[in-house]
Amino acid sequence: MTVNEVYEKVMTIKSINPLVKNVEYAVRGKLAIRAEELKQELEEGKEYPFSRVVNCNIGNPQQLNQQPIKFYRQVSSLCDNPDLLKKENYHLVSQLYPTDAIERAKKLMKSIGSVGSYSHSQGVPAIRQTVAQFIKERDGHPSDPNHIFLTQGASSGVQTLLSLLTENSNSGIMIPIPQYPLYSASLALYGATPVPYYLNEATGWSLDVDQLTDVITQARKEGTDVRALVIINPGNPTGQCLTAKNMEEIVSFCYQQRIVLLADEVYQTNIYQPEERPFVSFKKALMDHPIPEVRENLELVSFHSISKGMIGECGRRGGYFECVNLDSQVLEQIYKMASVSLCPNVHGQILVDLMCNPPKPGDPSYESYKQEIESIYESLRRRSKKLEQVFNRMEGVTCQPAQGSMYLFPQITLPPKAVEKAKELDMAADAYYSLAMLEATGVCVIPGSGFGQKEGTWHFRSTFLPEEHLFDEFCGALEKFHKEFIEKHT
Amino acid sequence: MTVNEVYEKVMTIKSINPLVKNVEYAVRGKLAIRAEELKQELEEGKEYPFSRVVNCNIGNPQQLNQQPIKFYRQVSSLCDNPDLLKKENYHLVSQLYPTDAIERAKKLMKSIGSVGSYSHSQGVPAIRQTVAQFIKERDGHPSDPNHIFLTQGASSGVQTLLSLLTENSNSGIMIPIPQYPLYSASLALYGATPVPYYLNEATGWSLDVDQLTDVITQARKEGTDVRALVIINPGNPTGQCLTAKNMEEIVSFCYQQRIVLLADEVYQTNIYQPEERPFVSFKKALMDHPIPEVRENLELVSFHSISKGMIGECGRRGGYFECVNLDSQVLEQIYKMASVSLCPNVHGQILVDLMCNPPKPGDPSYESYKQEIESIYESLRRRSKKLEQVFNRMEGVTCQPAQGSMYLFPQITLPPKAVEKAKELDMAADAYYSLAMLEATGVCVIPGSGFGQKEGTWHFRSTFLPEEHLFDEFCGALEKFHKEFIEKHT
Repeated sequence: MTVNEVYEKVMTIKSINPLVKNVEYAVRGKLAIRAEELKQELEEGKEYPFSRVVNCNIGNPQQLNQQPIKFYRQVSSLCDNPDLLKKENYHLVSQLYPTDAIERAKKLMKSIGSVGSYSHSQGVPAIRQTVAQFIKERDGHPSDPNHIFLTQGASSGVQTLLSLLTENSNSGIMIPIPQYPLYSASLALYGATPVPYYLNEATGWSLDVDQLTDVITQARKEGTDVRALVIINPGNPTGQCLTAKNMEEIVSFCYQQRIVLLADEVYQTNIYQPEERPFVSFKKALMDHPIPEVRENLELVSFHSISKGMIGECGRRGGYFECVNLDSQVLEQIYKMASVSLCPNVHGQILVDLMCNPPKPGDPSYESYKQEIESIYESLRRRSKKLEQVFNRMEGVTCQPAQGSMYLFPQITLPPKAVEKAKELDMAADAYYSLAMLEATGVCVIPGSGFGQKEGTWHFRSTFLPEEHLFDEFCGALEKFHKEFIEKHT
Repeated sequence: MTVNEVYEKVMTIKSINPLVKNVEYAVRGKLAIRAEELKQELEEGKEYPFSRVVNCNIGNPQQLNQQPIKFYRQVSSLCDNPDLLKKENYHLVSQLYPTDAIERAKKLMKSIGSVGSYSHSQGVPAIRQTVAQFIKERDGHPSDPNHIFLTQGASSGVQTLLSLLTENSNSGIMIPIPQYPLYSASLALYGATPVPYYLNEATGWSLDVDQLTDVITQARKEGTDVRALVIINPGNPTGQCLTAKNMEEIVSFCYQQRIVLLADEVYQTNIYQPEERPFVSFKKALMDHPIPEVRENLELVSFHSISKGMIGECGRRGGYFECVNLDSQVLEQIYKMASVSLCPNVHGQILVDLMCNPPKPGDPSYESYKQEIESIYESLRRRSKKLEQVFNRMEGVTCQPAQGSMYLFPQITLPPKAVEKAKELDMAADAYYSLAMLEATGVCVIPGSGFGQKEGTWHFRSTFLPEEHLFDEFCGALEKFHKEFIEKHT
C-alpha cells in the first residue's frame, strides 16, 4: 500500500461541524479548567496562597460536602441491590433501613422491574404518574402523565425542545440576558437565532413585559421568525423570582405574540423570601389565566430537575419536562427523539419519583427528612445573605439579593487600569478579575461575560455553596483579594 | 387583550425542525408501540392468543429476567448509600456484602466523592484510568485516559462523533447495510449523507474491502465528502465477527482513503465461536498494523457500553469511547460538548469501572462472579444456536449463525400474496409479517426494513434473550405462527 508522505488529519478544527465550534460554555470553561489544574498541582504538593480550590462556578452542592437526603439514598440503594429486599435478609436490612424506605423500594421495583433494564423511553409510567400527582398538588390543576417526559437532567430536555423549535437559522428564541449559557450554547449548536432581552438589575433583575414587546417587534421587523420565550425562574445567574402578576402578563404576551413559553423552573424550591416572593409555576400561571382561549392554547413546556433544590443530586442526571397544549404530532416527535436515546437512566428516574413524593407526616422517615431539608434550606438562606452583604461591602461592588436559586451575580466597577490590562491580554475585564481571584484565593467563579450582561458593565456569578463552617474564611479571602486587586490596579 | 379567533399552534409537524422529522428509529418504532399497547390490554384483562408480550425487538436482557451480576450491584448500592460504609454498621453490612465489594466501594467513593456530584465532564479521572488499564490488558497496547470519554451509553458517544464529523450536508459517513438504526437516525438528525455499503449475507455477513473501495470511489465521484467509516463488530443486527486479517485490510483502506474509523464494539464479549472468531478490537488491529505511518495517523474512535455483554445494565446508561490519533484541538471540542451536558451519570460511570475491573482470581467474589458470567454466556450461546436452528427449519427462511452479538437476522421469502397484502396496507412486507407475528404470538421483532437490506429481500431481527425455561415455548410459537402465515398467504 502507498504511504502518504504527509497525512493530513480528517478531523481538524477547520473541518469539523462549524456549529460545534461556535458553542461557548463558560460554566465549565477556561476558568474551570484552570481550577482543575490548580487542584492537581496542590495535590502534587505545589505551594499556593490557598490550601484548596473552591468551585463556586457551578451549582454542585454535594461536591462541597452538602449531605444527600438519607431517605432518597436508602431507597435508591435498595433498588440497586434487590437482594436486600429478600425475606431472608430482612432481619439485617431492617436494622439498617427504615420500613418506609423498604416499602418504597419494593413498590418502585414492582413498576420498574430492574434498574438494569431500558425503561419506557418517556420514563417509567408509574413514575410519570407520581410527577403528574406532584404537579397537581403543587398547582391545583391536573397534569397528564402522557405529556411528561423524564430526562437526564433538565439540560437534555431543554436541548430537545430547542432543537425541535429550530426549523432553520432564522428561527428565533428569546433568551434573558444574563442567561444560563446552556441556552446560548444550544442555540449555537442547532444554528438558531438567539433573541436577547435584558433583565433590569436596578429593580432586582425584574422582567419588563413592555421590553419583551419591543424586542420581539424589532426582531420580527428584522425578519427573525421568533418562536419561543425562555424564562428562567427563579433566575440563573440572577436569582430573581417573578410575581404572579408579572407571570400573567408574560403568559398574555406569549399568547398574543403566538410563541411557545419555555419555563426553566429547576430552582423552584430554592426560595429565600417565601413570603414576598413565593414560587409560582408557569403551569399554574397559565391555568389561572382569566381568558379560557389562553389556557387552552398557549404552548408551555416547563423543566424541573433533581440536581437543585435541597436535593442536589446532580451526578445522577435526572429531571423531567411537562408539555401543555402541545400538538399531538409534536409529542410523537418528542417521543421518537427520546427513543433514539433509548431511555433516561433509571437511577435518575427513581430520584425524580422520590423528589415528587417525599416522606409524608407520620411516615417513619418523615421527621429526619424534614429536619435534613430544613437544615440545608436555612443554611443556604443564611449563606446567601452573608455573601450578599460581603459583596455589597466591597468597594465598587453592588449585589442584588438572591430571592431564589443558588447564585449571586454582583456587579463590579473595575479600575481603568484593570480594564486596560485585560484588553492587553485579550480577555474580558471580568474574566481577568475572576482569574486573578482564582489564582489568589482558589475560589473559582464565572465572569459575567459568560452569561451576557449590559454593555459596559462587569459581573461574576458565584454560588453560595461553600460549607457553613468554612464560610467566614471563604468570605474573608474574597474581601482581601478584592481590596488588593483594587489597590494593585489603582 | 385580543383573543385570536383561531389559534394556530407554533409547533406543528410542518413548522418543527425538518431534520427531526426525517429521523426514523425502528427499534422503538411502530411495532414496539403496538407491543406496549398489547401489554397494557393484557393487564386490563383483554384476551389474546398469548398470555404475555415478549420484547425481542431490543437487546434488553434484564427486561427478560436476566439476573444482574451481584458484585456490580453490591458495589453500586454501597456507593449509593455511604452510611453502609460507616464503621458502626460494619457488623451488619459485612453479613450482607462480601469484603471485596466493601473495599471496592470505599476505593471508588474516595475518587468520586459523592454519586450526587457532577463529576469531571469527561468522566471521573480514576475511572478513566481503569478503562485505560482494561484496554491495555485487552490489546497489549497502551491507552491514554485523557483520550477516553465516559458517556451515557454508547449511543450518546456515537452521536457526539457523528455530529462533529458533519461539516455540512455533503459530509458523508459510510454505514453498513444492514445497520443499527442509531446511525441512520443520527445522520438524518445532523443532516449528513449516509454512504451505505453492503454486508454479504451468503458468506455470513462478511465485509468485502473491495466493495468499500467501489462505494467510496462512487460516492466521491458524485461529490460526497466521505469522512468516516462505521463498522459494527460484532455485527448488529447481523452478528458476524471480523477476522484479524479482514480488520487489517479495513484499517489500510481507511488510511489510504483518509477517513476516520468509527468502531462500534459494544458486543465485544458476546462471542459465540471464540476459537474460530475471537473478538479483536480495532485499537489492536490498528496498533498491530505493519506500517508505522498507519499506526501513527489513522483516526480511530471505538465505543463500548455496559448495556451488552453478560452485564446487560442497559438502564444505567453507561459507556465510553476511546480516541486514537485525534487532533488535540478536536479533543478539546469533544470535551467542550461533554461539558455542556455537565457529566455522564455517575452510576453509569461506576458500572464502567466495574466492567473494566471485575473481581480477580483469589478475590472473595471471584468464584460467584465467574459462575454468573459463565452461566449467562453459555445460556446465550445455547439459545442463539437453538433459535438459529428453528429459523433454518422454517419454510422459506434462512438464517446465518450468530458469531457474536445478541441477535439473529433471518431472511424470509414471503409469498406473493403477503407482499401484495402489505403493499395494500402501505407497509413493507417484512413489517407486515412482523406485525402479524406480534398479533399472533406476542413476540415483538423488528422488520429488516428498519435496518436496511438488499433490495427485494426481507428479514427481521430477533434477540435470543427470552428466558431459557420458556425458550422452547417461544420457539414453538414462532414456528406455529410462521406455518400458519405461509398457509394463509399461499
